[in-house]
Parts: sequence; structure tokens; C-alpha cells
Amino acid sequence: MELWYTEKQTPNHGITSKIKRTLHHEQTEFQKLDIIETEQFGNMMVLDGMVMTTDQDEFVYHEMITHIAMNTHPNPRNVLVVGGGDGGAIREVLRYPSVEKAVLAEIDGKVIEAAQNYFPKIAGSLTDARVDIQVTDGIQYIAENKNKFDVILVDSTEPIGPAIGLFQKPFYEGIAEALKEDGIMVAQTESPWFNRDLIRQVFQDISQVFPITRLYTASIPTYPSGLWSFTIGSKKYDPLKVDEEKLISPLGTRYYHPGIHRSVFQLPIFVQELLTGKGE
Amino acid sequence: MELWYTEKQTPNHGITSKIKRTLHHEQTEFQKLDIIETEQFGNMMVLDGMVMTTDQDEFVYHEMITHIAMNTHPNPRNVLVVGGGDGGAIREVLRYPSVEKAVLAEIDGKVIEAAQNYFPKIAGSLTDARVDIQVTDGIQYIAENKNKFDVILVDSTEPIGPAIGLFQKPFYEGIAEALKEDGIMVAQTESPWFNRDLIRQVFQDISQVFPITRLYTASIPTYPSGLWSFTIGSKKYDPLKVDEEKLISPLGTRYYHPGIHRSVFQLPIFVQELLTGKGE
Amino acid sequence: MELWYTEKQTPNHGITSKIKRTLHHEQTEFQKLDIIETEQFGNMMVLDGMVMTTDQDEFVYHEMITHIAMNTHPNPRNVLVVGGGDGGAIREVLRYPSVEKAVLAEIDGKVIEAAQNYFPKIAGSLTDARVDIQVTDGIQYIAENKNKFDVILVDSTEPIGPAIGLFQKPFYEGIAEALKEDGIMVAQTESPWFNRDLIRQVFQDISQVFPITRLYTASIPTYPSGLWSFTIGSKKYDPLKVDEEKLISPLGTRYYHPGIHRSVFQLPIFVQELLTGKGE
Amino acid sequence: MELWYTEKQTPNHGITSKIKRTLHHEQTEFQKLDIIETEQFGNMMVLDGMVMTTDQDEFVYHEMITHIAMNTHPNPRNVLVVGGGDGGAIREVLRYPSVEKAVLAEIDGKVIEAAQNYFPKIAGSLTDARVDIQVTDGIQYIAENKNKFDVILVDSTEPIGPAIGLFQKPFYEGIAEALKEDGIMVAQTESPWFNRDLIRQVFQDISQVFPITRLYTASIPTYPSGLWSFTIGSKKYDPLKVDEEKLISPLGTRYYHPGIHRSVFQLPIFVQELLTGKGE
Repeated sequence: MELWYTEKQTPNHGITSKIKRTLHHEQTEFQKLDIIETEQFGNMMVLDGMVMTTDQDEFVYHEMITHIAMNTHPNPRNVLVVGGGDGGAIREVLRYPSVEKAVLAEIDGKVIEAAQNYFPKIAGSLTDARVDIQVTDGIQYIAENKNKFDVILVDSTEPIGPAIGLFQKPFYEGIAEALKEDGIMVAQTESPWFNRDLIRQVFQDISQVFPITRLYTASIPTYPSGLWSFTIGSKKYDPLKVDEEKLISPLGTRYYHPGIHRSVFQLPIFVQELLTGKGE
Repeated sequence: MELWYTEKQTPNHGITSKIKRTLHHEQTEFQKLDIIETEQFGNMMVLDGMVMTTDQDEFVYHEMITHIAMNTHPNPRNVLVVGGGDGGAIREVLRYPSVEKAVLAEIDGKVIEAAQNYFPKIAGSLTDARVDIQVTDGIQYIAENKNKFDVILVDSTEPIGPAIGLFQKPFYEGIAEALKEDGIMVAQTESPWFNRDLIRQVFQDISQVFPITRLYTASIPTYPSGLWSFTIGSKKYDPLKVDEEKLISPLGTRYYHPGIHRSVFQLPIFVQELLTGKGE
Repeated sequence: MELWYTEKQTPNHGITSKIKRTLHHEQTEFQKLDIIETEQFGNMMVLDGMVMTTDQDEFVYHEMITHIAMNTHPNPRNVLVVGGGDGGAIREVLRYPSVEKAVLAEIDGKVIEAAQNYFPKIAGSLTDARVDIQVTDGIQYIAENKNKFDVILVDSTEPIGPAIGLFQKPFYEGIAEALKEDGIMVAQTESPWFNRDLIRQVFQDISQVFPITRLYTASIPTYPSGLWSFTIGSKKYDPLKVDEEKLISPLGTRYYHPGIHRSVFQLPIFVQELLTGKGE
Repeated sequence: MELWYTEKQTPNHGITSKIKRTLHHEQTEFQKLDIIETEQFGNMMVLDGMVMTTDQDEFVYHEMITHIAMNTHPNPRNVLVVGGGDGGAIREVLRYPSVEKAVLAEIDGKVIEAAQNYFPKIAGSLTDARVDIQVTDGIQYIAENKNKFDVILVDSTEPIGPAIGLFQKPFYEGIAEALKEDGIMVAQTESPWFNRDLIRQVFQDISQVFPITRLYTASIPTYPSGLWSFTIGSKKYDPLKVDEEKLISPLGTRYYHPGIHRSVFQLPIFVQELLTGKGE
């Protein structure tokens, strides 16, 4: 049987991957949730028809949304992950001995359940004693928890459906208030090939809220274009000015190491240009 | 009409792209050559069913196979491109004022013709007076031209069909002889996700021929996994030891700039590990 | 290169066919017109993303829309084909020596041109001296030509876009007026699997206009479900009451012969039932 | 999520159908067995990558492999189905009150189990007291049961894998011996569009074993080309010479009725010609 999962990542382009079988299908309160077993990437979680994570390449996304900010902050104790119900970002956060509390504010409890059932290596850390799982709207959680966090990671789905509000300026303002005075945030901000307007807008919005704003990228095969961007907003610490000698080498990573901490900010020209709108 | 080009980049995974129309189909002496017009990436050249280049993302590959080596060599005058019949690498080579002669040794003249017809922005430099087009077997050309080149770029197709010999140690030995005593070579060496054994083997082979061997990567959306590797073999100059102040900023590039010259060598751990076989 | 044409014949099901190349792409005044060369069915004409005809199986449709009515009428001299710009129905009409004039009323002249360029075996008869090509709206042509035709064939595209009016009752009333007092019409009426409501409606409409109404089917691989229906409206002659001895054996057919003239009206129960709405 | 099942029914053409989920995947002793839930056709059983049956259109195949032979024999009491593990042919056989015993000789018990789990409407009759299920090689069963059956239905998979022997002359000779002196057999014999050589060969083989040999067709949307053939071999009774008055109207059918008993033998010319090889 030739059974292929096809994601049209844009109206005109996509990936297609041979599947062994479907493992789970559910219409949650917020989105369509599918788990499929692929030949190439192992188990794959798909939300509203878009790949969220896979066994094989999840480490890239989860490490890269986490370590740049965590390793830039000198002493992250309280960390919040907005979204990220699969638990991968939390797993990476917990690699820092300084962490006392890691809150997961995920709106869709079914995503957490599915991750625990089908992605034990990703979701395994959710049972750690330092983890506080809040099944709630991240925007609301932010509003209710001011001046509390050292690091906030916005590990959202695409900017459609439940995650729309997570790509808008008022949300970043809320994050700034939820962060302590030397806090730092990072958000996944889509593909530099396919989402140029969005990246530019988010960068501008975050720039207006945070004194230090930085964009960096990582290569993720199952995400649109294979190249993904992350945007940092920081009140005090600049990831480019960290003392490389003092960077932690988190144990168990497969992508991040201190050597790439600054190099990932060396953007190709076409990515630099999207921030200014030049060449569009 | 829904007409989609699908490339199975591995037996179990691939890309699918909506096409407007087919522009050209030809069985050359060496391979199947197709030109199709896609909605997402513009014109696309496909050899034996594998995407070689597209209007939209060609600049990444052509800049990144060229500028690291060219900018590492202090004074590249004679340059050879093996393969690369589309002319993109030659275009980038000619951005260096020091270049006196750029030889293109492409085995399949039909690729050159098709590029000139359907990719004028890529192939346009092939009419430059400094360019010497040799429609010939690159291996043989190498054998007949010893001690001649400052830089040699191996811009081959995948290691099947006409390009198999270009991924084998005797070829790198021939390149070493064709290079001058301070010459430098670079080869495209496939995906760190899907071709780990190949990359490791090529890296080992080149290491045995050249005193300095380095691997770097770039993000190319239409290539398998979106992440591509290049391997450098150098007799004298180390790309990591160049004086950043002296690096040229080639005019007209959209990916390469001196700022990334060293950062592209900062490999993710899983790429580092493939060189040693660790974690396989 | 794996290049496949995919037609979603319904939102949830379709055919996919390997193509050699695209031959023609055009946005006409009325519709999108594509000609592609497939491996399985030879050249294929696609209008607005739906297969209209192919080299390999065109004979089924063209013979079956034509011969039942033509062979039921004892002496068809003036024949009108509404739509049918590829010329296939005209070719079949001309197999009857009694025919003096065959009018083709096709709204889209580009379809005729494309058929003449890419389907010479189908369109070849359009140059016959008895053929009168009218590039015009069939509905208007019907309105202006009353009491003129012995047989009218409605060889339309799907009931979306330019052909919508050809599936509505006022059109059948117009046809009745354009036919002579013993005239007979036939219309292609889609798939008994996928278009049950449409077939029932058209059958009822034609029943209210013509004293004799009959449905029959034929097997066409490239049409949705592979089973296609045709509906006859007749003023006088009943295809089921023809004297089988007097039926003509048209020369050159590959599907129709007098032996199937009546058997095609022996409908499977599930097709019978769609006419009454039973079992829906 | 866009998840589509694609069957390449030939190397160059196929169907593609949107699926809700996979229900079952199993490598049995004999073949790969998949059950998927499709949007268009409901549950679908796929053996070695080929659609065997679906909820929506199964009735066509099961009725048409059964009723022509059953209704041609004046008094079928002992019936054998070779293959047919889904139980659909048995269900149809049991519509005849004359039937005393219906043996199912299916080589792959897993097919029977899967049908009982996922296709209760098809497999439901397998628990009837008249049914004798033999999980065994049909060829061997035939060899061991001579002069026993009034009707034998060969409800095989495609002529690759476990079913190869069921398309060869020695098997038909065995069937002739397993039948009583007035017995009748029928075999499914693939598509008149895509399997012309096979149909011709099987027809010739059966003609050399049985005095009366007849080919008929039915329309099945999920089978290659949508048109399917069946070949009858009969020792005494000719389906074309039955007294239409005496035909039984089996209760509950949705395709077959006495009115089509003879009309299905009225073959299109291109099907007639494949029997003689003319026009190939």
C-alpha cells in the first residue's frame, strides 16, 4: 500500500512522506490532532494539517527554541513555555541546573496527552517535579503572572487557529510584563523563505517592546523550506555579547553547543533583508 | 488542473511542487533532463528526477559552493568548475576581480544549452571572456591539467549516474594534482540528514589527500532535508584562519557575506558526529 | 522525474496519471485549457482541471453520446452538437450516410483549435463539407434555430463554469423547440456514483419536456467513477422499441454496435433507484 | 491533514483517495493486509497495495461474480468460493434458497478475520449454518473434492503473489473435475482496459476445458479502469439461453436483477476484440 502524508506547506509546495499507519486522530476543542507513523521520521504529530514535531528531527526545534535564551540568561530559575504541549522545550529547559520551576501553559490538554502517549522521549520530562503544567490560554496566563519569569519561550503553532494571538504585539507586551526586569523571551517565527512579512512584523513588534531584539535560524527538515527562524526579545542580556567562556554546555543536546551560540545570528543576506523589507 | 512535480528524495520522503507547465524534456547522452515551471520556485531544472536548481533558491547553492573557497584563497586567478553546467558557480567565481580564467568542465553539453535557454540569470556569465567552456569528462580534464588551478569547485549531481566517479578518492587525488601548491577545492557533499555515510566517507577520503579538510553547511529548500553540506580540501589556506578584515565582500550576493564565512563551520552536534560515526 | 496529473474528481477521490510533458496551457475567455501527454492514455485535454477526453478512451464517450440517438432516429439528416468542441461527436455523427448537415455550436473556439492541433483523430472530421462550425453560445444558437434538427447532442463540460445553463430545464425546452416534431436529444449527465442528485433532476426536467425519457450508461476509465450516464429525451422514437434488424452498424466504431443498443438501458438497481430517489 | 491513499493500478495510472485513518496493518503469512477508512468509499481492504473491496462499491463485485452463474444453474445446492475471504460472494450465494452448503476455501485466515472485524455487512453471512470455512489453498481443496459442486466462484486477488496459480489452465481443469457434470464456474478476470493479454489467455484456457465459455463485465469504481471482467466456464447451462421468466430475483441486491442477466454479455467491440487479439 502506498500511503503518503502530504502537507501543503504553501498553496504551491509541500512535503510528502510515506506512512506506516495512523496512530491517532482527534478533533480537540481547539484543533485537529493527528499522530502518524512515518517511515522516514518516525512518529509525527500533526496539528490542523501541519507537522508539529517528529521523532527524528524534534531535537533541532526544541533545542534551538530553548538554549539560546536559556544560555544567554546568567541564572534562569523560573521559566515559562507558552504552547509547547509536546514537552520538548520543557525537556531542554530542565537541562539547566539553575531552573527551579518550569511552567507549561498549553491551551490544549489533548496535545499533552498525545505527546505522553506517542512521544515519550519528548514528553518524558513533564513529570519532573519542577514542572507545573497549566492547561490554559497562554495569553491569559501571561496576564495573570507579572514580573515572575526569567525566560519565556513562545512555542506556538502556526499563526492560524488557536495561536493567532501569539503573533501579535499586545502579547509581546504582556510577556514583557510577565518577565522580570532582566528577563528574556524567544518566539518561533516561521520560515524566512515563506513567511517574510510575518517575520518582519513580529521583529518590529518585539523591537518596540524590548531593547534588544535578535533573529536567528536553524535547519528543520520537516518544517516549511527546512529553514526556521526564532526571534529573541531581551530586557538586558544580549545573546551576542555573552562571554563564550561562561556558556554552559547542556548535556544531551544533538544540535546546540556553545560554539553555535553566536554563529546562528550570522544571517544570510536574504534573511537580513527581510527585516528591513529590502529586496521584496 | 492540479499538476504536481514529486521528487522522492529518499524512498520514503520527498517534496511536491505545483507546476504551471513543462518547458523541456530530453534524454541526453548522459541523463534525463527536464525543465519545469513551478508556482513556488519558478523554473526548475531536474536531472534524472532530482532537482538541480531553481530560479528562487539557486543563489544559496551557487554562492555557498563558491565563496568560502574563493574568499579563503588570497588571490584566485585560475579556477575550475567540474560539473556546474548551469553556470551558477561560474557566475559567482567571476565576482572576484583576481580571476583571469574560469574553466567549466561539464560532461553534458545539453545541460549548458538548457540553462542558457531557461535560466538566463544563472547561465548569463558563461559568455564572459574569461570563461572557457569544456564539454568533457571532468575526471579526464583533471588528469590532463596538472598544477594549474588555484581553486577547483566540484559542482556535481548526485552520486548516481554520470557523477559517481566524482565522489571517489582517486578523483580527489587528481584534483590535488590539478591544483597549484597552495590550491583549495570544495565539493558539494549532500545532506547531513539523509547521506551520512557518504559525507563521512568523502570527508575521510579528502582528509587523506589534503592537509586541511573542513565541512560546512547551507540551507537550500529544494534539496533533500533542506540542509546541504560542502567539503573543503585545502593544501595551505584554512578557511577558519582567514583574516576576517581581509575578506572580500563580493557584490551581488544574497546569502554569502564575510560575516558567515566562519560561522557556517560551526556545525550542529549531529553533523559533527557523522564525521566520526558517533551516534550512528 | 515523477510528474503526475491529479484530478480530484470529488473532494475526496480522484485519479492520478503519470505525464510525459505538458503540451499546452491557456486561459481562454471561458475556461482553463490544458493539453498534457500522459503515459497511460496518450494526449489528454483538461478543461478547468477536469479530464475532457484522451486519445485512448475517447471513443467510448464519443460513440456512446452519439449512436444511441442517431440509430434510434430512422433518418437523421440535420444534427446539432452543443459543446463537443473536440469534434469527437461530430466524427461519430458523420458515420451515418443520411446526415446532410452537422452543426457544431461550441462556445469556446480555443477548444476547437486545441483539438485540431493535438487530437487530429478526434477533430479530423471537422473539416468535412457537411460540418458547420458555429463558435457561439449553444443556448443562444438553440433559441435562434427552431424546428430544424432531427438529433441534438448535448456534449457539455461539467455543470460548473460555462456549461451550467446546459443542465437546466429551460435549455431542454429550447432543445425541444429546436428539434423537429420527431426529434430526439441526448445529454451527457455525469456519474451515477458521484452525481446522483444531478442525474435525478435532469431526468425529471427532461421527462417534463419530452414524452420519452431514457437513461443509459457506458464505462469510461478517465471519467469520475468510470461509469457515465446519458439521458435521452425523444418526441417520438423510443430507443427501446427500435427494430433491431433495422439498426445500422456504423463503420469504424470500437464500443457501439447494434447488440448493445438496448442492453445499455438495462440499468443496475442502484442506478434505477437514483431516478426515484429510493435508497438515498 | 491531507492523507491520501494512492494505488498505482498500472505503472502509469492510479487512484488516490482521501483517508480518515488507518485501521489495521498486518503482514500475514501470504500478503500485506491493510484496512483504511476512506472519506469517499468507507472502509477499504487493501491486499499487497491493491484495493480488494470497499464499503461503498463492494456490492457490484460480489453480486456480479455470483448471480450470473448462480441464476444460470437451475438448482445450485453445493457451492464453492475459492478466495473471497471477505465473505461477500458467500453472502450473495446464500440468497438462493436452493443452497445447502457454501464452502469458502480461503488461503489466508487473516483476511477472514479482518473482514469480520471491519466489514460486518460483507462478512456477516460467514456465520450462517450452511457455510463451511476452509482456511486452505484453493488449488489443493479443489484437488481433494471431485464431482462435488454445482457452482464454483473464483474470487481471487490479482494474478501476483498467492493467487498466481488461480489464473492458470491446470486450475481450471481441476475446477472442472470438482464440479458435477452440469456444473458452472466463474472467475474474476481483471480489466478489459489494462489486462487484455491476461483476459485473452484465461478465456482460451477456460474454452479448452469447458464447452461453454462466456465473458461479461461490470462497473466497479475502485478497480483499475472502473470496468471489470468475469469469465464463465460451463459444462451444460448457457447463461445466454436461460429462460428469463424462470430467473430468480434475488432479494437485497443493488446491482444485479434478471433484466441485466443477458445484457452484461453484450460486450463493447473493443472487449470483443481482445478475445481474438484483433486490434492489438
